[in-house]
Amino acid sequence: MFRLHPQLSKFVTTSVARRFSTVGKPIECFSAVAWKPETDFSKPAVSLEKIIVAPPAENEVRIRIDYSTLCGTDLQAAAGKDNEAHFPFVPGHESAGTVESIGPGVTTVKPGDKVIPCYQAQCFADDLSKDQCPRCRGYRKGKTNLCGKVRGFTGAGVMRAGGVRFQGAEGQQELHHFMGISCFSQYTVIHEESAGKIRDDSPLSKAPLLACALPTGFGAVMNTAKVEAGSIVAVFGLGTVGLSIIEACKRVGATRIIAIDTNPEKFERALAWGATDTVNPKEHDGPIQDIIIKMTNGGVDYSFEATGSVDVMRAALECAHIGWGKSVVVGVAAGGAEISTRPFQLVTGRTWTGTAFGGFRGREGVAQLMDDYMDGKFDIDPYITHNVPLRDINEAFRLLRAGESLRTIIWMHEDPPHIGAVPA
Amino acid sequence: MFRLHPQLSKFVTTSVARRFSTVGKPIECFSAVAWKPETDFSKPAVSLEKIIVAPPAENEVRIRIDYSTLCGTDLQAAAGKDNEAHFPFVPGHESAGTVESIGPGVTTVKPGDKVIPCYQAQCFADDLSKDQCPRCRGYRKGKTNLCGKVRGFTGAGVMRAGGVRFQGAEGQQELHHFMGISCFSQYTVIHEESAGKIRDDSPLSKAPLLACALPTGFGAVMNTAKVEAGSIVAVFGLGTVGLSIIEACKRVGATRIIAIDTNPEKFERALAWGATDTVNPKEHDGPIQDIIIKMTNGGVDYSFEATGSVDVMRAALECAHIGWGKSVVVGVAAGGAEISTRPFQLVTGRTWTGTAFGGFRGREGVAQLMDDYMDGKFDIDPYITHNVPLRDINEAFRLLRAGESLRTIIWMHEDPPHIGAVPA
Repeated sequence: MFRLHPQLSKFVTTSVARRFSTVGKPIECFSAVAWKPETDFSKPAVSLEKIIVAPPAENEVRIRIDYSTLCGTDLQAAAGKDNEAHFPFVPGHESAGTVESIGPGVTTVKPGDKVIPCYQAQCFADDLSKDQCPRCRGYRKGKTNLCGKVRGFTGAGVMRAGGVRFQGAEGQQELHHFMGISCFSQYTVIHEESAGKIRDDSPLSKAPLLACALPTGFGAVMNTAKVEAGSIVAVFGLGTVGLSIIEACKRVGATRIIAIDTNPEKFERALAWGATDTVNPKEHDGPIQDIIIKMTNGGVDYSFEATGSVDVMRAALECAHIGWGKSVVVGVAAGGAEISTRPFQLVTGRTWTGTAFGGFRGREGVAQLMDDYMDGKFDIDPYITHNVPLRDINEAFRLLRAGESLRTIIWMHEDPPHIGAVPA
Repeated sequence: MFRLHPQLSKFVTTSVARRFSTVGKPIECFSAVAWKPETDFSKPAVSLEKIIVAPPAENEVRIRIDYSTLCGTDLQAAAGKDNEAHFPFVPGHESAGTVESIGPGVTTVKPGDKVIPCYQAQCFADDLSKDQCPRCRGYRKGKTNLCGKVRGFTGAGVMRAGGVRFQGAEGQQELHHFMGISCFSQYTVIHEESAGKIRDDSPLSKAPLLACALPTGFGAVMNTAKVEAGSIVAVFGLGTVGLSIIEACKRVGATRIIAIDTNPEKFERALAWGATDTVNPKEHDGPIQDIIIKMTNGGVDYSFEATGSVDVMRAALECAHIGWGKSVVVGVAAGGAEISTRPFQLVTGRTWTGTAFGGFRGREGVAQLMDDYMDGKFDIDPYITHNVPLRDINEAFRLLRAGESLRTIIWMHEDPPHIGAVPA
């Protein structure tokens, strides 16, 4: 593992100064790299080193990443449990930054624009004469946020125009992209369809929360489940996404919000966020779904699974009320894992569904959410528990694995004012 | 097994004459009885014999069953694969008849009313001061058709007022009810909540089709999936329910209807009903879901499973289009069987749900459907392929098991004009 060189600050200053002179040239910068699956949590999850980021090709955008955050999906990917993490790769998918340069054909962003790179791309398909993705056009337009225009490439860790844009600084091995984002590098290259432009006055140090965690939780409640006022809900898993689900449920007027986690240290925060009840499955005998059904005299109107465990997904479905209960899978399970239930659970009127990016359309979604944030409709700060400089990114992994953090902001080019836990 | 006695016709005549003099007294009549699980299909599925039907207790209704039909669920129950079939029991749940007498407290039907006994009861909960079921009252009213008022009793094969209303004619063993209906007896007793009054000019010999099969198929399309014009759909299983799904999809304007069955003899009818494509999984290598996804360039908007096989349920989900595809489980699986899939199927926007009685509210549903039928909105005759007298009920089982029939009308008190296949 490469330990960040003392000259980082000098390098950063230099690279910023060169910002507008790097167009068309490779950029050498620091990046986290996942060389191989690392399941030994006593070891660093990723290696920090210099890499070379190629200029953007056709319809690509090169971005200076200012701030990143770390999500449970990154933990799974670094541990080799994500089928779409192709080693070696540059990890990370939650960030905000600034457009450094654009490749030929790019029309929707320009250098200097503030952007949130969107792992769920959006192709703005409205012209059937173009090569648009079939998921977004014609009568299907608006039926889903899951634009498929670049999906085949981002899932394979490569770019549509061919190959990758990362390689080791010594000219060695090429590195794969991850989720079409790879924001744990100081510079990255993404498809134009993934460049979510946000307003010029956006606070970039908070914006990474809008790249995945908050839209996923808010959207699961508002777009996917469509929770109504007066509803009874259950939320399994009290990490950042679970808390954002609780926040959204409270905001739409759910009257009972049952927060479930096997780590009781998370209950205080859940209650502060709006939960009305907390349940620790370890304190009960028998299936947790039976406990919830008993607590609610029949089951909940809506349940949300935000842990990634297929057993929890089953419990979440089965604690939903007969006749109308809807369960939303939000967590991402390990590759190959399967969910099961008796079909009677569905025949008797339960609905099992899921959400990716909370049903928000990628680029429109982040712009709208930033507007909502700037209008004071929700706060981001409570979800930011730690700050670390890029050189301490493995500490962000440790904190998240240990359940000690919500989101840790990774300062990609400078040291944060306070390293570590956010002062109370 | 009791082979119907030659004196049946005399008995029937007598019982009809006594119809209005039986109030408050036990009625002796003929009934099919399932004494034990019968999985040897070379043997009769049920035994035909005399039983005694007690008068209705409080809030119960005794009904003269005029016509019954046989459904796949009855096959599973007779074979011991339905956890709610408690041997010995009087089977059957699709029928139409006439109210013979009512127990104390009954207010919504009177003797002489034509009724469809509804296995999905409906409690008309609108008065919170009464002992109403929590599924139908308050803010939950209208959220489901699955009234729970008598569900615990019908699932256990008994009556809410205690015990059962059937016993052998020789005074021997008591017999359980089945699905709260037990219409393979010439007389039965049901809860008032299950007595679906239909208009006086209703044709009782066709009405049994509205007790389960057609509402299930029509409602799966219109109430549960809410298929829109222009949709692409897949229908797995081409029995009566599958065909009624095809009919409803055609009626709402689906433009492509893919009919799937391993028995190609069913394709001609499916095409006549409105299918645009037929697929026999046996003629393809690889999972059928992959074939359908290929045929449709990405998957179907809606899929329906009407076979009861958990493997088919999975295929139906997985052939639904990423982002918005919805799959409805309609078939009833064997007790203990489980469905499985990768959660990624849900996270990427598919919805897995199910339907019982097509989402129609029991008593209101059958009345509305009968009105629609009388108004010419759909036809019932094409689904009736055979007629048999009660004494030949085991032939109806044979025909359904062999896939030779859609619905066979079982004439409960007299011989049909044509026994066997309906003349062309």
